[in-house]
Amino acid sequence: MALIVQKFGGTSVGTVERIRNVARRVAKWKAAGHDVVVVPSAMAGETNRLIALAKEIQPNPDPRELDVVASTGEQVSIGLLSMALMELGVRAKSYTGWQVKFLTDSAYTRARIVSIDEERIRADLKQGCVVVVAGFQGVDQAGNITTLGRGGSDTSAVALAAALKADECQIYTDVDGVYTTDPRIVPGARRLRTITFEEMLEMASVGSKVLQIRSVEFAGKYRVPTRVLSSLTDPLLPVETEARSGTLITFEEDPHMAMEKAVISGVAAQRDEAKITVHSVPDKPGIAYAILGPIADAHIEVDVIVQNVSHDGMTDLSFTVARADLAKALKLLREQVQPHIQCRDVTGEERIAKISIVGMGMRSHAGIAAKMFRTLAEEGINIEMISTSEIKITVVVDEKYTELAVRVLHKAFELEQE
Amino acid sequence: MALIVQKFGGTSVGTVERIRNVARRVAKWKAAGHDVVVVPSAMAGETNRLIALAKEIQPNPDPRELDVVASTGEQVSIGLLSMALMELGVRAKSYTGWQVKFLTDSAYTRARIVSIDEERIRADLKQGCVVVVAGFQGVDQAGNITTLGRGGSDTSAVALAAALKADECQIYTDVDGVYTTDPRIVPGARRLRTITFEEMLEMASVGSKVLQIRSVEFAGKYRVPTRVLSSLTDPLLPVETEARSGTLITFEEDPHMAMEKAVISGVAAQRDEAKITVHSVPDKPGIAYAILGPIADAHIEVDVIVQNVSHDGMTDLSFTVARADLAKALKLLREQVQPHIQCRDVTGEERIAKISIVGMGMRSHAGIAAKMFRTLAEEGINIEMISTSEIKITVVVDEKYTELAVRVLHKAFELEQE
Repeated sequence: MALIVQKFGGTSVGTVERIRNVARRVAKWKAAGHDVVVVPSAMAGETNRLIALAKEIQPNPDPRELDVVASTGEQVSIGLLSMALMELGVRAKSYTGWQVKFLTDSAYTRARIVSIDEERIRADLKQGCVVVVAGFQGVDQAGNITTLGRGGSDTSAVALAAALKADECQIYTDVDGVYTTDPRIVPGARRLRTITFEEMLEMASVGSKVLQIRSVEFAGKYRVPTRVLSSLTDPLLPVETEARSGTLITFEEDPHMAMEKAVISGVAAQRDEAKITVHSVPDKPGIAYAILGPIADAHIEVDVIVQNVSHDGMTDLSFTVARADLAKALKLLREQVQPHIQCRDVTGEERIAKISIVGMGMRSHAGIAAKMFRTLAEEGINIEMISTSEIKITVVVDEKYTELAVRVLHKAFELEQE
Repeated sequence: MALIVQKFGGTSVGTVERIRNVARRVAKWKAAGHDVVVVPSAMAGETNRLIALAKEIQPNPDPRELDVVASTGEQVSIGLLSMALMELGVRAKSYTGWQVKFLTDSAYTRARIVSIDEERIRADLKQGCVVVVAGFQGVDQAGNITTLGRGGSDTSAVALAAALKADECQIYTDVDGVYTTDPRIVPGARRLRTITFEEMLEMASVGSKVLQIRSVEFAGKYRVPTRVLSSLTDPLLPVETEARSGTLITFEEDPHMAMEKAVISGVAAQRDEAKITVHSVPDKPGIAYAILGPIADAHIEVDVIVQNVSHDGMTDLSFTVARADLAKALKLLREQVQPHIQCRDVTGEERIAKISIVGMGMRSHAGIAAKMFRTLAEEGINIEMISTSEIKITVVVDEKYTELAVRVLHKAFELEQE
């Protein structure tokens, strides 16, 4: 008998019939003898509807009031899901964020969880109840309603699993796990049965949208065994089968898990990126800050940053930004930064993509980077930028090569074979 | 400078544009120097939508979970209205029922208010804020969400006005006050500038749908000066004009108000009633309970009850029920009651109406009842039942006479003249 936290996304509770299916799935786990806590998102489209209403009234909605409005979506879901469970003869009880309570800071619309008081949940579990908790929302010290920002329900579920010391946090979603790469690009892409938390973090940061990066961080920090699995399967699939489905996020320290791992776990691609180069700036202390500080102040997120060795005291600094931010970033650099730093030019390139390979195995295997570069070179794909971390190598290439690069890397690292 | 609580119904906040109009109206009162607390209902249709969703999942929804779901409607309204006020440059802050807090008992879907902690509201008012409070909802001692039942927002507003010792509670609705009778029946019906709380209570009990009877009771208990006025006028109508509009509920003890009053304040009609007569039952103790007990157990509401003097130890007992309950009540009486009480027959009459005249003045004026009966007799309207209270006389007549009865009584008591 285990304690399991199950999170269901907005699509999974998007209609009455789907809510019934979620209830059937939950009831099945409960009937198998497990204690179950469920965290549903708002019904699909509901949060967007509420935010649109707010923006119609106040184009730049007051964050406190926006959270009051936006948090109602999950509140409706917990009530409805509890009813659906009762209709199946399962005892169920719902809690909002403030009832649990999920104490957060006061950063409306993007609050951080401070603590979770799980007493009432434990008491209800002891009574044989399935407990249904609203994700995405909390309450600050002063009693104001807060929300955790988009994708916050994943974070709520993982945090709750951590607080309850649950045996597993199951994130039900519309994909059936984490793949070696995007199956739309490589039909032979393979579902990973396990992935380490570090790999998952890197995958999330380079475009794998399976889990919010914040919830992965939480899972890592509190070592919550977290499983990504499909909500589209038959809700009455045997528990034993479902328990082995999807992808389990593990922790490297588990030697058994580590031994099983291939060198590389996956290939990720991220489009909608753009590259900015500041040409021939004096290579002196403070220059990177002089360029990137104003970018950060303008709330433009910068990803890969590369600075080459200097020639004659001059260097080039390149970095990537979201394509939607390119025009704004260029304008800012040309008008506010260029006059002060004596660079030769600021240029932007709109059509680039980031291709990453991720794997714990590369820590102990030499030559992974070389193999990646050679594979791309053999296909005539020019590498514009390179950035590496301990378990990830990212290259920036012309966007038109995205699919080709993913396919040849997937093949070169033999990801189709288990 | 006064402290005013303003309540706006679902139609008044039914669209973004209407919410803006409510904000303009509130801002106007604030600009005139008043402290304003606003209690909006859920946007029109929203509560019904939520309840329908719940019933789709659970035909007989769990009351605790139904309140979790249904209370979100008002939560959305308070956020949106606060935003609309800010957009006009007015400082505003919203509170849900549990934030205020409105402490209630645990009778989900029809909770009663136990106490209101108005500290935070006072503090915000002092800061110059307009405070926007969710009506209809509260929280019980254990922290569960409760709702006050349909029309509960009126009760919330009046109760809040009582707790804050507000100078006036203004209930904005889609009629512009309380009339001497239904203007659709009598075009010359006149708006009452004032009505006593007792009269309002009687009017509410006989079909005037202007205010929920429960909120009237609250107004009476705590002597909250409550004004019913229109939300359909120009929101920028001068405050001085609006302050004198509608109908103010007063308390008889105010001698100035009492002196102004006519003998009769209004004529009310209620259709959709049916009459049941239990013929020739033995006139002995316990017989009324034997008949009406099972009716109450079946949750059928009984209104006018009349028992005539007995002849030869036998009597007839008649009472009215809602027309929709007639068949059920007759079946129950014939199958479960008749076998035990030795009555001759149980009959039902479907097409009746209740006509009432209401007025504090009848306490001190003799002959009011006689005048009412004579007026009806002169028109050939047969009176089937009579029931009286201190300030109300109700007669039951054939439904086809409804309009005629209302018109002639309105004229006979000279209600068209101020």
